[in-house]
Amino acid sequence: MIIVLKPRISKQEESAVLAEIRRLGYRPHVMRGVARTVIGAIGDERTHHTLETLTALPQVEPIQKRFKLVSREAHPTNSTITLPNGCVIGGKELVVMAGPCSVESEKQLMMTAKAVAKAGAKVLRGGAFKPRTSPYEFQGLGEKGLKLLAKARKETGLAVITELLSENQAEMVAEYADVLQIGTRNAQNFQLLIAAAKTGKPVLLKRGLAMKIEEWLLAGEYILSNNNPGLMFCERGIRTFETYTRNTLDLSTIPIIKKESHSPVVIDPSQGAGRADLVVAMCKGAVAMGADALLIEVHPNPAEAWSDGAQQLTLEGFAKLMQDLQPFAAAAGRL
Amino acid sequence: MIIVLKPRISKQEESAVLAEIRRLGYRPHVMRGVARTVIGAIGDERTHHTLETLTALPQVEPIQKRFKLVSREAHPTNSTITLPNGCVIGGKELVVMAGPCSVESEKQLMMTAKAVAKAGAKVLRGGAFKPRTSPYEFQGLGEKGLKLLAKARKETGLAVITELLSENQAEMVAEYADVLQIGTRNAQNFQLLIAAAKTGKPVLLKRGLAMKIEEWLLAGEYILSNNNPGLMFCERGIRTFETYTRNTLDLSTIPIIKKESHSPVVIDPSQGAGRADLVVAMCKGAVAMGADALLIEVHPNPAEAWSDGAQQLTLEGFAKLMQDLQPFAAAAGRL
Amino acid sequence: MIIVLKPRISKQEESAVLAEIRRLGYRPHVMRGVARTVIGAIGDERTHHTLETLTALPQVEPIQKRFKLVSREAHPTNSTITLPNGCVIGGKELVVMAGPCSVESEKQLMMTAKAVAKAGAKVLRGGAFKPRTSPYEFQGLGEKGLKLLAKARKETGLAVITELLSENQAEMVAEYADVLQIGTRNAQNFQLLIAAAKTGKPVLLKRGLAMKIEEWLLAGEYILSNNNPGLMFCERGIRTFETYTRNTLDLSTIPIIKKESHSPVVIDPSQGAGRADLVVAMCKGAVAMGADALLIEVHPNPAEAWSDGAQQLTLEGFAKLMQDLQPFAAAAGRL
Amino acid sequence: MIIVLKPRISKQEESAVLAEIRRLGYRPHVMRGVARTVIGAIGDERTHHTLETLTALPQVEPIQKRFKLVSREAHPTNSTITLPNGCVIGGKELVVMAGPCSVESEKQLMMTAKAVAKAGAKVLRGGAFKPRTSPYEFQGLGEKGLKLLAKARKETGLAVITELLSENQAEMVAEYADVLQIGTRNAQNFQLLIAAAKTGKPVLLKRGLAMKIEEWLLAGEYILSNNNPGLMFCERGIRTFETYTRNTLDLSTIPIIKKESHSPVVIDPSQGAGRADLVVAMCKGAVAMGADALLIEVHPNPAEAWSDGAQQLTLEGFAKLMQDLQPFAAAAGRL
Repeated sequence: MIIVLKPRISKQEESAVLAEIRRLGYRPHVMRGVARTVIGAIGDERTHHTLETLTALPQVEPIQKRFKLVSREAHPTNSTITLPNGCVIGGKELVVMAGPCSVESEKQLMMTAKAVAKAGAKVLRGGAFKPRTSPYEFQGLGEKGLKLLAKARKETGLAVITELLSENQAEMVAEYADVLQIGTRNAQNFQLLIAAAKTGKPVLLKRGLAMKIEEWLLAGEYILSNNNPGLMFCERGIRTFETYTRNTLDLSTIPIIKKESHSPVVIDPSQGAGRADLVVAMCKGAVAMGADALLIEVHPNPAEAWSDGAQQLTLEGFAKLMQDLQPFAAAAGRL
Repeated sequence: MIIVLKPRISKQEESAVLAEIRRLGYRPHVMRGVARTVIGAIGDERTHHTLETLTALPQVEPIQKRFKLVSREAHPTNSTITLPNGCVIGGKELVVMAGPCSVESEKQLMMTAKAVAKAGAKVLRGGAFKPRTSPYEFQGLGEKGLKLLAKARKETGLAVITELLSENQAEMVAEYADVLQIGTRNAQNFQLLIAAAKTGKPVLLKRGLAMKIEEWLLAGEYILSNNNPGLMFCERGIRTFETYTRNTLDLSTIPIIKKESHSPVVIDPSQGAGRADLVVAMCKGAVAMGADALLIEVHPNPAEAWSDGAQQLTLEGFAKLMQDLQPFAAAAGRL
Repeated sequence: MIIVLKPRISKQEESAVLAEIRRLGYRPHVMRGVARTVIGAIGDERTHHTLETLTALPQVEPIQKRFKLVSREAHPTNSTITLPNGCVIGGKELVVMAGPCSVESEKQLMMTAKAVAKAGAKVLRGGAFKPRTSPYEFQGLGEKGLKLLAKARKETGLAVITELLSENQAEMVAEYADVLQIGTRNAQNFQLLIAAAKTGKPVLLKRGLAMKIEEWLLAGEYILSNNNPGLMFCERGIRTFETYTRNTLDLSTIPIIKKESHSPVVIDPSQGAGRADLVVAMCKGAVAMGADALLIEVHPNPAEAWSDGAQQLTLEGFAKLMQDLQPFAAAAGRL
Repeated sequence: MIIVLKPRISKQEESAVLAEIRRLGYRPHVMRGVARTVIGAIGDERTHHTLETLTALPQVEPIQKRFKLVSREAHPTNSTITLPNGCVIGGKELVVMAGPCSVESEKQLMMTAKAVAKAGAKVLRGGAFKPRTSPYEFQGLGEKGLKLLAKARKETGLAVITELLSENQAEMVAEYADVLQIGTRNAQNFQLLIAAAKTGKPVLLKRGLAMKIEEWLLAGEYILSNNNPGLMFCERGIRTFETYTRNTLDLSTIPIIKKESHSPVVIDPSQGAGRADLVVAMCKGAVAMGADALLIEVHPNPAEAWSDGAQQLTLEGFAKLMQDLQPFAAAAGRL
C-alpha cells in the first residue's frame, strides 16, 4: 500500500509514520518527490494489520490506490529504459521494435533484421519459445532461435526482445535477450514475473486478454517491487465480442498509463488487429496518442510464415510504414 | 444480397442474371463500377428462394457479404454529405461537431454555440430528447430544446445535430435538425432507423454497445435501402469488462469502415471515454487514423451539467483541443 | 429514488418526510411493508434538487438503490401475473411458453400450438413482427400473423405472447396478444417500453445483449412507473467473447432478480444457446435455480424454419423435454 | 490433428493411412471405438507438412476438430478419475470438494475439514500458494499449508486438492496433494500444464477468464498428450461486462464439455459468483445440468477470512446446502 504524506511535514512527523508502519509489520520504502513524500509499505496482509489505520495520523493523506511503485505519484517524471545499443525507451524518440512472429531460420531472420534496421527500427523482435493454443502447433526453435537472435544483433546493432515462457528458462533467455517479453497468457503468471524481474533485464509486460487496467498496473508492481526498474507496459488488444478483428486494440491505454504510471507504453498493433491491413492506421493512432514505442510483426514472406501469417507486414510494407509515420511522430513532438 | 459480375461480361450475359434475380422474387439494383458491375438484390428471404443458386452461373463471382448498398463494392468512392451551411462530411475537411450533452437553457446553449463556432466547429450538437437509464432522470427539454437549437443555428451558422428517440417524433425533430442522431441504445431499433431514413435528413448512426461491425453495417443498410444516402457511422465505444473507462473506444473501426463502406466515419470520444481528461488524446488518435469527423461534448460548466458532466470539455478546453489537433489533421492530409 | 424509513417511525415523522419530498419537487409514493415503510420519490432530477439531503433526517435510512417500484423493498412478496386463460406467472406453478420463432403459416402454427398445449405448455409464443439484423431478411407476417395467433388461442386455450417492435403498433398488437414481448434490441428503447406499459397488457422484458442487471431493473422501472404492474424479466443470454454458443445464458440472474425484485423471472434457453441440443440441460438448470417460467422455441420442422432453425426444438423433442423436467420441477417445489 | 477413418475399413487400408501419417513426420496414435477408428497424429507443424492432404484418401473422413485426445470421438465413454480415498469423479456419484479459499491455520483448516467431511464432502480444497493480483496481498502459507492439508487428510479421510502456481513446485505440491489445481490465470501457462501433467497426479483445469471453449479443450490436450489421463475441466466464471457478480458463471459449459469431451466437469460457484448468497442456487443449477462435481469455498468465519471472504459459505451454510442439493442430485440420477 502507498502512503502519501501531507506537504511540509517535519522529519519528526515523518519518522513517526515510518515507525508505525514498521510496528504494523511492514517495511517502509521512502520516495521523496519535489512536492511531497510518498511511502510504499512493502509486506503482505497476512498479519491482518490493516494499514488504513495510518490515515488517522494527521500527517497522512487518504489512501487510495492499490499500486505503489508503479504509480506516477511514486515517480512523477517519466521513467526511461536505456538498452545496450543506446536506444532509449520512454524518452523523446519514438522507438520501433520489429521482426518476425517466430524465428524460423537464419535466412529469414537475417533478411528481416537487416531490412528493419535499414528502415529505422532499433529493436529486433522474434519468438524463440512460442506459447501455442494447441500442443500440436509449432512451439518455436528454442535456444537455437535465441542464438540466431544474438547473431542478428551482432550483425545489425539492433537490440533484441524475445518472449520468456518458463521460470526455468529465465536465466537462459536473459543471457541472449536485451528485453524479456511476458506474453498475454502469462500476464498474471506471477512466478514468471518474479523470475523475469530477478534477471535484471528490462521487462515488456503485455496486457492480459481480459485484464483490467488496475490489474495490469499491479502486475507491473511485481516487476518494480522485485528491484527491477525496467518495466514497460504493452497493449496488444483485449478480448471482446467483436470478431472482425482478432482482438480489440484499446488505444485509450496510452493516455491512461501515462496518467497513472511513469513507465513507458508500447503498442502492438499486429496482435491487436490480427490483420496486416489495419496495422498502418493503428500505428498512426498510437503515435498520435503518445505511445513511446511500437512492436510490429514483419516477415519476408508472410504467406509462408510458420505462425500468424495474416498479421505480419512485408519488408516493403514495413519500410513504407516507417515513412508514413514521420509526419505523425513530428506532430506528436517525437524525433 | 449483393451479386458481383465477373469482369468483361456482355450485356446479354448481364441481362440473363437480372432475369434470374427477378424470377427468384427479388428486385435487382444495378451498380456499375469502373472495373465491374455489381447487382444488389432487394427483397426478403420469405419466399425461401435462396440467391446462392446464382453463383452457378458462369458470369457471377462467389457471393460473400450480407450488406449491399453500404458496401464499398457498391460505391467505390467515398460518399460525402453536404449540410445546409455548406459543411461537407466525408470530404477533405475534418469536421468537428461540438456542444453540450443536453440542451439545458438558452444561456447555456448560446454561450456554448458561440464558443465552439469561434473555435472552428461546424456543427452544434445538443440533446433535446434524452434516453435515460432511469425513468427518474432528466429526460431533456423536448421541443423547447429543439427550438433553442434552431435559434443557435440562426445566430452562429452552425448546422444542428440532435438525437431522435421515437418514431412518432421523426417528422418533428427533422423539422429542426440538419442531422438526426440515432443513439447506441436504438442502434438496432429498426423501426426508428426506417422512420429516420424516411425524413430524408442525414442520419448519424451510433454503434450499439455490443454491436458487431457486420451488424452495424447492416443497420446502416436500413438507411440506404430506404432511399436516404446521408448515412454516417459513429463509433462511441463498446461495452467490455474494463471499468476504468465508461466504454472501450474502438478506433480500429475507422480503417475498417473505410475499407468495407463508402460512408463517412465519425468518432465520439466523450461517450467513448466518459472522462474529459482522455478526450484530447483520443481525438488525436482518431484524426491520425482517418476519421472524417469528431463529435465532442462541451459545456460552459461541466460540474453543473444536468447529465454526463464528467465527460464534457470546458469552452477553454475545447478551444485548446482545436489548436492541438492542427498538426495531426495536417499530417493526415486534412485541411 | 427510493427512501427507506427507519423502523417504528410515528405518523408525524413520516409526514415530515413526505412534505420534504414534495418540497423538493417530487411526488411521494408510499409503500408499507410489514417491517418498515418505503417511499418512492417519483420525478426527474431536472430541478437539480437532490434527494440525498433527505438522509440528513433522523428517520430516514441511507439511500442506495436507483430502482424503486421494481425493488423487493418496495414489494416484499412475489408479484404474480394472471393471464386470461387462468395461467399464473410468478406463483407456485412452473409455466412453459412455447411455439415457433416466427409465425409462418396457419398449418405450421396450429400444428405447433396443439402439440405444445398437449405437452403441458400454457402460453403460445410466435413472432408476427420480427426484428432482423438485415433489411433483406424475413420481417414476419405482420397483422396476419397476429390473427393466426388469436385463432390458435381460441382453438387451444393457450394464452398468446408476441413481440412488439414499434410504438405505433402497441395498440394493435395488444388487441391480439395476452403478453407483449420486448426484445433484446429494444430493451432500452424507452419510448417503446412506455408505449407497451400504457396498453395495460403484461410485458415480458428481455435483457439487452450488453445490459447490466441494474440497467435491466431500471428498464423494468419504466413499466411499473407507468402504472403497469405486469412486468416479467426474461434472461436470454448476453454477448460475450465466447462463440461456441450464440450468447452466454446468465442463469445467475434467477437468484439475483429474485433477491432484488418481486417480479417473475423467465428464462429463454433457445436464444441463450442458439442450439437446440443445449436447450434441455439449460431448462433443467433454470428450473432448479428457481425460474418462474420458460420460453422455448418449438417448430414442426426446424430444418425448414424461416428464421433461427438451429435453435428450435421439434414437437417430439418438446414433449420429451416436458417429461424430463418433471423431477426437477418437483425438486424445486413447483407443481 | 485427429483423423477419423470411415466405417468398415480393412486392416490394410488402415495401415496405409498410418504409413502416410508417418511419412508426413507425425506419430500416429490409434484409438479404436465400437463404430470406427480414430487416429491422433502427434507432432508439430514445424515441418510444414499439412495433414489435410490425408483427406484425399478415400478411407478418411473430413478433418474438423483441433483437439484430439480430449475429444469424445477419441474416447466415447465418460472418463472417471479415482482418488486414493476411493472417491470417483466422473462416475455416478456427485462429488463435492469443499474447504477454505486459503489455508490460514491448523485450527481453521481442521475445523473446516471435519465439518465438510461430516456434511458429505469427499475432497478438501485449500490454497497453500495463492496467486494474488497485488504483490502486497497474502500469498499463502506455502509448504506449511501443504503439511496442514496432509494432516487434515489423515484425520478425515478426505482427498486433497490444492493449487499449483509454479513449475518449480510441481514435484513438491504433488507430494502432498491428490489433485493439482491449475488456476484461471494460469490456464494457458502451458509450461505449468506440462509440469503438472508430468507429476502423474490428476489435474483440475480451471477455465481462463477470457478463454473460449475450444481453447480450454486444447489446454486440456496439453495434459492428456503428456500421458496424464486424470484431466477435469472446472468452470469458474468468465469475465464479462456485468459487475453485479464477480464473474459470469457459464453453466452451459456442462452440456458442452459433456458433448465434446469425455473428461469430468466441475463447477466452482464460489469464484463464479463471488457472493455466498448466490452459491446455493448455482449449485442446484449445476447439479441439474449434469456437473460431475462441485468446488465450494467454506470457512468457519468468512468475515475474518484472509482472502475472498465474501464468497465463502459458513460451516452451517455448507451443511444446509448439502441437504438442499439432495432432491436435485436424485432428479439428475446421481447417488
